[in-house]
Amino acid sequence: MPEHGVANAEVLRRITAARPELITVARAGDVVPGMDDRTILTSGAPLTWPEYTGGQRRAILYAAVHEGLATSTEDAADLLDRGELRVRSTQQHSCIGSVAGIYTSSMPVLVVRDRTSGSTAYCNLYEGKSRRRLNYGTYDEEVATGLRWLASTCAPVLAEALELHGPVDLVPIMARALRLGDELHSRNTGATLLLQQELTTSLFAVAQRPGRAEPVREVLEFLQQNDYTFLRVAMAAAKATADAGHGVAGSTVVTGMALNCREFAIRVSGLGDTWWRGEFPDLEGRFFEGFSEADAEWLGGESCVTETIGLGGFAQAAAPTLMDYQGGSFATMVANQTAMYGITVGEHPDFRVPALDFRGTPVGIDVLRVVETGVTPVIDGGLAGRAGGQIGAGVLRTRMQAFARAADAWHEQQRVSTNEVRTTALTTPGGTS
Amino acid sequence: MPEHGVANAEVLRRITAARPELITVARAGDVVPGMDDRTILTSGAPLTWPEYTGGQRRAILYAAVHEGLATSTEDAADLLDRGELRVRSTQQHSCIGSVAGIYTSSMPVLVVRDRTSGSTAYCNLYEGKSRRRLNYGTYDEEVATGLRWLASTCAPVLAEALELHGPVDLVPIMARALRLGDELHSRNTGATLLLQQELTTSLFAVAQRPGRAEPVREVLEFLQQNDYTFLRVAMAAAKATADAGHGVAGSTVVTGMALNCREFAIRVSGLGDTWWRGEFPDLEGRFFEGFSEADAEWLGGESCVTETIGLGGFAQAAAPTLMDYQGGSFATMVANQTAMYGITVGEHPDFRVPALDFRGTPVGIDVLRVVETGVTPVIDGGLAGRAGGQIGAGVLRTRMQAFARAADAWHEQQRVSTNEVRTTALTTPGGTS
Repeated sequence: MPEHGVANAEVLRRITAARPELITVARAGDVVPGMDDRTILTSGAPLTWPEYTGGQRRAILYAAVHEGLATSTEDAADLLDRGELRVRSTQQHSCIGSVAGIYTSSMPVLVVRDRTSGSTAYCNLYEGKSRRRLNYGTYDEEVATGLRWLASTCAPVLAEALELHGPVDLVPIMARALRLGDELHSRNTGATLLLQQELTTSLFAVAQRPGRAEPVREVLEFLQQNDYTFLRVAMAAAKATADAGHGVAGSTVVTGMALNCREFAIRVSGLGDTWWRGEFPDLEGRFFEGFSEADAEWLGGESCVTETIGLGGFAQAAAPTLMDYQGGSFATMVANQTAMYGITVGEHPDFRVPALDFRGTPVGIDVLRVVETGVTPVIDGGLAGRAGGQIGAGVLRTRMQAFARAADAWHEQQRVSTNEVRTTALTTPGGTS
Repeated sequence: MPEHGVANAEVLRRITAARPELITVARAGDVVPGMDDRTILTSGAPLTWPEYTGGQRRAILYAAVHEGLATSTEDAADLLDRGELRVRSTQQHSCIGSVAGIYTSSMPVLVVRDRTSGSTAYCNLYEGKSRRRLNYGTYDEEVATGLRWLASTCAPVLAEALELHGPVDLVPIMARALRLGDELHSRNTGATLLLQQELTTSLFAVAQRPGRAEPVREVLEFLQQNDYTFLRVAMAAAKATADAGHGVAGSTVVTGMALNCREFAIRVSGLGDTWWRGEFPDLEGRFFEGFSEADAEWLGGESCVTETIGLGGFAQAAAPTLMDYQGGSFATMVANQTAMYGITVGEHPDFRVPALDFRGTPVGIDVLRVVETGVTPVIDGGLAGRAGGQIGAGVLRTRMQAFARAADAWHEQQRVSTNEVRTTALTTPGGTS
């Protein structure tokens, strides 16, 4: 086995040994490392404030208004220009963003900890199935009311239920969800049902407390109406898992993929915290009625962290129902997933696809194999519109640039370290190598 | 179109137009037509009491003891011998039996009514996942306690919740379940989750009533632990649907399939209430650890009513997870389902299989096509053991005899009615045909 093979095997071991647990729901400002009241987090490899454009920029400004940090979006822009508010990448704070992925300190976040490694990640709550959502660059009274309900009603109820329940072991739920037609990126119906079932008796106990019946009823209704709820849990679980696999010297395995409004970027286990940036993915999408590709806009997005741990596009043969949502045929979905075995370092022992006779999903994207084979990762994803809101869904086919840059950097690192070894050997008194 | 084609199209229309709704849960003696306190119902084409053997006979005797009609199984046998207790077929009372399918008057039943035709059917409640169940021919204090809990706690809670909720429209739940990996015979996990979700807010409201919190909590826990719960609902829905399709003159479509301890039998829409009897199916099963084919016994069973409406074995490509339970490969499952298109008269407009690019399931088994093609229906099923309890699961491949007998009877009926027409013509004064 080449040296990077040993390192990659270690990353695979860490990723597949991860046992993420949903611990609680808490205020971002109280639990997210480095978060403060004047910080706004957003998806993707870090950019400076002036670099944020379009819907992602708009979402950041709206966030400042929603948080009460600015009186208007103009005021928010001034404060950000002057550095009195700061915008940071979710990735710099162990968070993971859906689409624009906006976090302010008052927002509630799901807290997921990997029992094996201790790695902890955070994801904020799903805003519901309305196409109008802050994370899709939209803000109005409806959006604001929804966000306030999440913070004032939903989060406390979930936190109380989780306190009674104890940590929710997520791998069993996620593994079962693949048997219920989910791939845990664009389809989460099964996992959402399982999480509801898991928490029902605890929610029921919370409802017996004085004054808590009505808030619990509201949360139950929200869960009932929103099949996507689990995605945020899956994202936090995937982030905690990918982070557990990050930082293994010499490894060429991808431990993060993320979009901002300017680029797609990846992070590699053995290449430190650098994000290797490249062009946007190609889009093979299906647009909701009344929208076309011309309406699409890149607003950022990190739900593709699920693909880094063998879910989403890498488990799409588990979720043929997605054809209804994003087009295609089952044969194409099987072919898409099957192609991913050629660029990954292993198969997941727990995430298995019934229709592939329970073969484990491909896991651990190897940038060297991506470059060698010319096959890039596929991502299941939602599509955002220029005017805000979700306008479709589809398969994103990532492009080579980010992977090629990472592979080049890894080769350069190897060259340098080999030279260092040589240099060390040569300069060590008595060195005879 | 031949005349029976028109009749079969009418049966298909009735079956696919059915809109079964779960109305309530009630005491069998109060709602099942013709049921009385000294009657025991059991699965399959009717037999006389002395004909019942093995586990099915044992289950009938246990039922008499459980109901307090007899002091022992010996006493029960005496009473049945003397006609002081009577045993009847579920089919004679619009009921549908799982395995031995035992009904006594005190047992609660699900009441399902087809909104389109008004046809109503009944199924008793799932006893839980223990291998020891009365319907598998087992009876002891554990089984008795479980049955008492269903009658005293589970049924009233469900009835109260259903009263608050109103009728539960089942086709949408069943159609969604096919997207959640169910085929609604041997796999019901998705539908059980959906039913729970549907009833949760009503259950929650029941729990607010004085003294009802604890019973509701118990029911929630039962549902949480028993993925099979929905099967009984699916069976009642399928029975109401199949009955809606029964009785169309000239039709060759199967409207019932049932097992008792002696034979497999079918009912045909245009052939009245006669059951056409034949040999047991062949078994392609997977046995639970410690059991083999030698341990298997036929105890009866009517859950194959689901196959008559395009579910179960006829929808198995929707449920690849069943491989884990009953063996096989996904390719075999697809081939099994695909073969059923050759012996059915249509495709279901609502029951669609994602992995077959949303093709509707084959529905309306035509006995003439079965005989012509030599292809017999496949059934997903549980396997019962001689010593009682469930010992495995598998695909039952029905044999030709019952279908051949029904086809012969239909041909005979056609011949007779043609002769009658001729005779009528010849004897009518001035007849010139």
